[in-house]
Amino acid sequence: MQRYFITDEAIKGKFIIITGDDFHHITRVMRMKIGDQFYCCNTKQTFICQITMITNDIVKAEIKEEIIEQKELKVRVSIAQGIISREKMEEVIDHITELGASLYLPVIMNRCTAKLNEEKLDKKIIRMNKIAKEASEQSHRANLLKVENPLTFANFLALKSQYDLCLYAYEIIENTNSLKQILANKNLKSLLILVGPEGGISKEEANLLNQNGFLPVNLGPRILRTEVAPSYIMSVISSELEG
Amino acid sequence: MQRYFITDEAIKGKFIIITGDDFHHITRVMRMKIGDQFYCCNTKQTFICQITMITNDIVKAEIKEEIIEQKELKVRVSIAQGIISREKMEEVIDHITELGASLYLPVIMNRCTAKLNEEKLDKKIIRMNKIAKEASEQSHRANLLKVENPLTFANFLALKSQYDLCLYAYEIIENTNSLKQILANKNLKSLLILVGPEGGISKEEANLLNQNGFLPVNLGPRILRTEVAPSYIMSVISSELEG
Repeated sequence: MQRYFITDEAIKGKFIIITGDDFHHITRVMRMKIGDQFYCCNTKQTFICQITMITNDIVKAEIKEEIIEQKELKVRVSIAQGIISREKMEEVIDHITELGASLYLPVIMNRCTAKLNEEKLDKKIIRMNKIAKEASEQSHRANLLKVENPLTFANFLALKSQYDLCLYAYEIIENTNSLKQILANKNLKSLLILVGPEGGISKEEANLLNQNGFLPVNLGPRILRTEVAPSYIMSVISSELEG
Repeated sequence: MQRYFITDEAIKGKFIIITGDDFHHITRVMRMKIGDQFYCCNTKQTFICQITMITNDIVKAEIKEEIIEQKELKVRVSIAQGIISREKMEEVIDHITELGASLYLPVIMNRCTAKLNEEKLDKKIIRMNKIAKEASEQSHRANLLKVENPLTFANFLALKSQYDLCLYAYEIIENTNSLKQILANKNLKSLLILVGPEGGISKEEANLLNQNGFLPVNLGPRILRTEVAPSYIMSVISSELEG
């Protein structure tokens, strides 16, 4: 059954009013009629709704039932990544949203070759959040992944206090623990993981990470490109905590 | 250190002769000189080599040392997938190569909306194998992933006897085991997993899979698109067997 994300304002008593893109999708793409049903989610709840009225610009649907879903990871996972090209960033956001991440943080790092120009930055972040919204719907998630504005490395380090555990992916140190080992028998509520940009994490940055209580983690014996590493991380977290 | 894949024919006694694309990469892109070193891998071995001669069209390098690497998964994993668009197939091949898969099998299934036209099929498969070769090099793998020509569903089912375990990703059956549960305490040498095309696996196909001894596996509580599922599978296999 089709799923749509709605704002709290769209809920009017026991009805939901749908306009805009979702109105178009329901009436034109899915060609639904009065009596057809779909899921509606706001950030906290999921409802089964049934269409009671269709006009030229709104769909009105009655809430038939609230359903309890456990589609969300028990741990809130934030993926931070050295800035990569916009296309690759969008691919990563798409994949990690489906895989259950909560937050995506682009970080300005020494070896970033790509930049997110200040020009039109707001538009780019809005577009990335739209990609996250679509991927959330696709994967039937109840919550949306949020994409933040780029952070300086210093501001990124300062996030440490907000998380139960902070990690960074680093292949260079021998005998680093695997993600599976690190997650074993931990009852985490929140987790922050940094993946370097294409050029990797610099020695200086690794030192700062260590000094600030971030732990290195290895992602297996093969070298993963920066755009593949976040999918690996989210897949392993999902498997360890939900598998 | 840079890594190149060579054929057995390139090895002449204790020297390696490099021509073509790799010659260009060594001399023009990396601008290496006599005395510079790189890794060379054939399908079984990895060598450290040192350049002894550069002409207009060959690089001659001396084998200094053979190194033993464990970059390969202990289990040979074949990913089969209902045919999807060429672009998405190339993305999947790129990712699963980095994540350690051995074989990619496109399968003609009921709900495939994309086709691999017979026309220029050979060229497309050659291109996909080239993507796999580049991804192998990137991730420092010793073996190459191979991309096969499209299989009919009947021919795919007949592969069952060649593998220790055959699975298919299926969300529709309640209480299906997770990949982690299925892999636990198994000493597998080979594993075949089928992921449906965008439209999913049909009921009829699921019945045939069951009748032929394929087991359903669930990939977590969120619905993964077909192009994300293979990365999830390979990440979890890597984490379970190498983590």
